[in-house]
Amino acid sequence: MSRFLSRSLAALAPYTPGEQPQDRRYIKLNTNESPYPPAPGVLDALNRQEAADLRLYSDPEAKALKAALAAQYGLEPQNVYVGNGSDEALNFAFMAYATDGRGVAFADITYGFYPVFADLYRISPRIIPLDGAFRLRGEDYYGLNQTIVIANPNAPTGLALSRAEMEEIIKRNPDSVVVVDEAYVDFGGESCVPLIPKYDNLLVVQTYSKSRSMAGARLGYALGSETLIQDLETIKFSTNPYNVNRLTLRAGAAALAEQAYFDDNCRKIMDTRAYTKAALEDMGFTVLDSKANFLFAKTPALSGLEVYRRLKEKGILVRHFEKDPIRDFNRITIGTREQMDAMLQALNEILN
Amino acid sequence: MSRFLSRSLAALAPYTPGEQPQDRRYIKLNTNESPYPPAPGVLDALNRQEAADLRLYSDPEAKALKAALAAQYGLEPQNVYVGNGSDEALNFAFMAYATDGRGVAFADITYGFYPVFADLYRISPRIIPLDGAFRLRGEDYYGLNQTIVIANPNAPTGLALSRAEMEEIIKRNPDSVVVVDEAYVDFGGESCVPLIPKYDNLLVVQTYSKSRSMAGARLGYALGSETLIQDLETIKFSTNPYNVNRLTLRAGAAALAEQAYFDDNCRKIMDTRAYTKAALEDMGFTVLDSKANFLFAKTPALSGLEVYRRLKEKGILVRHFEKDPIRDFNRITIGTREQMDAMLQALNEILN
Repeated sequence: MSRFLSRSLAALAPYTPGEQPQDRRYIKLNTNESPYPPAPGVLDALNRQEAADLRLYSDPEAKALKAALAAQYGLEPQNVYVGNGSDEALNFAFMAYATDGRGVAFADITYGFYPVFADLYRISPRIIPLDGAFRLRGEDYYGLNQTIVIANPNAPTGLALSRAEMEEIIKRNPDSVVVVDEAYVDFGGESCVPLIPKYDNLLVVQTYSKSRSMAGARLGYALGSETLIQDLETIKFSTNPYNVNRLTLRAGAAALAEQAYFDDNCRKIMDTRAYTKAALEDMGFTVLDSKANFLFAKTPALSGLEVYRRLKEKGILVRHFEKDPIRDFNRITIGTREQMDAMLQALNEILN
Repeated sequence: MSRFLSRSLAALAPYTPGEQPQDRRYIKLNTNESPYPPAPGVLDALNRQEAADLRLYSDPEAKALKAALAAQYGLEPQNVYVGNGSDEALNFAFMAYATDGRGVAFADITYGFYPVFADLYRISPRIIPLDGAFRLRGEDYYGLNQTIVIANPNAPTGLALSRAEMEEIIKRNPDSVVVVDEAYVDFGGESCVPLIPKYDNLLVVQTYSKSRSMAGARLGYALGSETLIQDLETIKFSTNPYNVNRLTLRAGAAALAEQAYFDDNCRKIMDTRAYTKAALEDMGFTVLDSKANFLFAKTPALSGLEVYRRLKEKGILVRHFEKDPIRDFNRITIGTREQMDAMLQALNEILN
């Protein structure tokens, strides 16, 4: 920290991304990336001519990609915000809807960036505990009269609320924005996108980082009423209008033309998840009922930290959060069947 | 604007990027892009394997690119911040150093984003007029005791201060950060980077968008003392840790290995600038002494707006700012020799 930094930023505790150690080659099951490459049509789209065109600015209005996303979800382009990863859209939603005393509510166990955004805008969030089974109880969010942020499916648990349960929350907070972070929705969750025409207070945030295999392209989007999207656009054009690069805009549109590839990948990952969950349970693990591309699991035999450490020694990275009440668990990304077999084999050696 | 937007954001007047009309094919001399593609080594680097690796997150610490930039400028990696365009670095500098009552000073005629950032953070900036010849007077910036932002060369004038003049400003504001926006420095300006080891209050911001032909890749960087860079990193990790995508990180490092290509492009653009300036002056234009990849020019024969409009009718886009005292001028990007001849020919037809 320099002697010049604003006092109000001096105490920030930034987000900690998943580790990316370079000391050896790991089977990387710690950041919920896809084990499959982007669709062939995406690779084709990123050709030498597109690279040569990098001399030109990207379209700050992202017209082509917005039109393609709108068509995909049965919405209009003015219902679509396109951002530099879903973290950017979430940041802007906090700036737009949680500041000026409005406040924000989210779960005690959820995406670790929400408290960081609250901290950045000097908001004391209302933290709502999950129940004893790590479930988010919809009724805890009724009539809060403040902005609500819910990851659905939730991370790192993988547990999801149904669309009907989400709709009750949205309906019972008509004067507050409900931000639904659907980063993991394509692995078996129920999306709230069909509710957008009914509720002007619903903002759905999605990402290309998980199901569409494009974490490294940095592309997220938000879907909602035209006026909510205008708010996000106002902030974007007041901070960084050219927020998404040309190649990513191009790749994002190309990916939408490859629905079959995408569906097939999601199905493979869900199959591998079921296989891995059953195998972990056979080994005595407790495994939550995940609708995401990861499992959240604990064993009575070893602490969560110890499982994480021993797997890392064996070249397998998983994500551990050393905090109550989830310190017994690890979050394990679903990779290929072969990667999961290697992980299960390693656990077998550790536990026997 | 939605009924949910924070009142303090409701009055924001966002930045207006240069127009990108799609109604016909234009010779685009309005956003200071390079007429030349990125270096061949950059195009080679963006290959199919890199595209396939988009399934993985980018390195949030940008280690490889930071090391390459540090080597390029004779600094250490901890003196380098890497961002999603230089606008992002400028935004973070405003957030870090101009809030909490510290304030900010910049010229009345300069990059149009500075007042937008000030507005975003609810700062009343100290606006310092250029002199009658559109020059920035260094002495106006001595002992201001607030954060100072100077584009050098300045935009849209193209006029530059020498390094010695800049050093006086930096030296005479020892307790304030001086942000030097060097977006255009590679076209004949003197960079302040060699001053970084002497002054802990100096932050230099540069971009790949102009001289390195990568506007569409979205890559900017800031160079400064280790503690200033830590401040920017703190904000980045509190807003969007994966702010630069994988392909752009890769392209950015590859570009640094192509210094000869880059130098040659800058030389060609400076030669074309001299040629264009002389031709405009022969036609009766007043042309400022630009050290940037654009010229700022006016004619007594027609208003600036009229010149802009008639050029657009002829398929040539330049940038016009309809504000005093620069409404007589247009900012004309330096393209290829052929593009400039087409522009000069069009002006000839308009004026005769």
